[in-house]
Amino acid sequence: MLAAEILAPGPENEICLMEKPRPVCGAHEVLIRVEAFGVNRADILQRQGKYPPPPGSVSTPGLECAGRIAAVGENVCNFSENDAVFALVAAGACAEYCLADARLVRPIPRGWSFIEAAALAEALVTAHATVFELGALKSGETLLMHGAGSGITSLAIQMARLIGAQIITTANHPEKCEKALQYGAHRAINHTTEDFLSLCGESSVDVAVDFIGGDYVDKHLRLLKSCGRLIQIACMQNHQCTFNLARLVQKRLCLQGFVLRSQAADEKAMLFTRAINRWWPALQEGAIKPVIDAVFPFDELASAHQRLQDSRHFGKIIVCPPLRSS
Amino acid sequence: MLAAEILAPGPENEICLMEKPRPVCGAHEVLIRVEAFGVNRADILQRQGKYPPPPGSVSTPGLECAGRIAAVGENVCNFSENDAVFALVAAGACAEYCLADARLVRPIPRGWSFIEAAALAEALVTAHATVFELGALKSGETLLMHGAGSGITSLAIQMARLIGAQIITTANHPEKCEKALQYGAHRAINHTTEDFLSLCGESSVDVAVDFIGGDYVDKHLRLLKSCGRLIQIACMQNHQCTFNLARLVQKRLCLQGFVLRSQAADEKAMLFTRAINRWWPALQEGAIKPVIDAVFPFDELASAHQRLQDSRHFGKIIVCPPLRSS
Repeated sequence: MLAAEILAPGPENEICLMEKPRPVCGAHEVLIRVEAFGVNRADILQRQGKYPPPPGSVSTPGLECAGRIAAVGENVCNFSENDAVFALVAAGACAEYCLADARLVRPIPRGWSFIEAAALAEALVTAHATVFELGALKSGETLLMHGAGSGITSLAIQMARLIGAQIITTANHPEKCEKALQYGAHRAINHTTEDFLSLCGESSVDVAVDFIGGDYVDKHLRLLKSCGRLIQIACMQNHQCTFNLARLVQKRLCLQGFVLRSQAADEKAMLFTRAINRWWPALQEGAIKPVIDAVFPFDELASAHQRLQDSRHFGKIIVCPPLRSS
Repeated sequence: MLAAEILAPGPENEICLMEKPRPVCGAHEVLIRVEAFGVNRADILQRQGKYPPPPGSVSTPGLECAGRIAAVGENVCNFSENDAVFALVAAGACAEYCLADARLVRPIPRGWSFIEAAALAEALVTAHATVFELGALKSGETLLMHGAGSGITSLAIQMARLIGAQIITTANHPEKCEKALQYGAHRAINHTTEDFLSLCGESSVDVAVDFIGGDYVDKHLRLLKSCGRLIQIACMQNHQCTFNLARLVQKRLCLQGFVLRSQAADEKAMLFTRAINRWWPALQEGAIKPVIDAVFPFDELASAHQRLQDSRHFGKIIVCPPLRSS
């Protein structure tokens, strides 16, 4: 099968397609013939040598895919060959075939395409875990979530809208701000020309979800109301952060870190189940749906990476491996 | 009545006793004839002008007391004159009479003295909220709580021991370390001669409760295991903190601020009720009990402050106003 591999992770990194043996199912796994997979920032970081796959994972990048079951492990009883499914994996989705822990696989929602289903797992589980579990966002509360164009935020906006929260988001372009409002944000701030802290004001937000870090941390702690929650899912700007701890104490704030990929299998399976169960009705009814930015053929994977890296996207970037006879 | 007042809060601060009118009950309040009150670090900070009482509170310091009900507000039906009670208040306990929200008052546990009961509220509620609610400490997990000699830590050690947790604490003197072990700590580190991070090792602790701040924050984030919780209740060393945010993200750590005094009345009443209800059987059975360091007469209140300020204590410092005919 064809699979993506990273040549020389680090500054000289390059992603290319290589012929590799088709993987063989473990007892609790399924093998998926991949029809579509989502591109995530983790893939780019892995390419750059900054985010190696967790121990025990294959070197092929890729965190999520949709396709048809090609083989079933001996202890798996809830899937059969040819079932249309989507999956969350720790690595290996950028390939024609991908192994998945059967607990992290679900049937594709009624009427969804493989492309839509491939865009779901990473965004849904991350948004659920950060905004709704750790952030405990409630109806009537205010959420600030950056990166309106990211797969996670463009879905989280719809989820937060559905429960009756107020949503503030940011983006790097007026067109993205416009789209964010269409998807349900109440306010969209162009962070290249405006300062979100000045615009929103101190103590105005209940939950903030951030992947920037650096001096954003102090801004967020100012922005949060009493008992507010800041969920940090990455620190793209700067790992080092400095702030006034007295503010955190006096306002009883919570600064909570989150990462999905490296979680232990059992823990990830429980989180995946909670996320899917909570949002399944909304997914089936079409009340929330991943936003698709662009679809690339497999041999243009590098272009898909470049589009994400340049932050030109609004929604998920999806890649479709070539269809072959199985 | 006699009440403590702070002359010139700030560098020239001084605490003294003044004659003031006896307070009058609001509809939901009780008036307590104070037999004993606890001295807290908040009293010293208030004296130094660093911690003014919350808006709407009296200027008299003091967060907790025990005594007998002297008067009952018209909407209070669960207390009668002369009942022996203890109470949590936002201010005013350093006096012969103290008003308390009836929801923050409870009968003294069977067989307890006023001195013991006066030492309970602030320590129990803070320990419960930080270690058990926010920190969610579970049996078999490891707790690091600094200041073995503080009223809060000397009680929290007993509480954590009771649920089967492992307890590490620190103190500024070998004798205090020895006492901490007697009260149930598994390890007590003299922080004037030893470094707790080196001794415990990275990723060795589930819950840390800290009032130091400054460069301790980074140490605690190193010390915490994956999904560990750091509860910050003050920052005595330094308000500014700097650390590596990537560590917080990758280990999915939680940094949570907490303060009791300034909480809204409703919220504080609910927390007080949860804390008392959870630990009442253990209090009644004597399985946990506030440690009493020293008892001062009312006219030696300044000496009581000095003892706390010099960190010479192990356990609570209690002051007893003069007994007068009511």
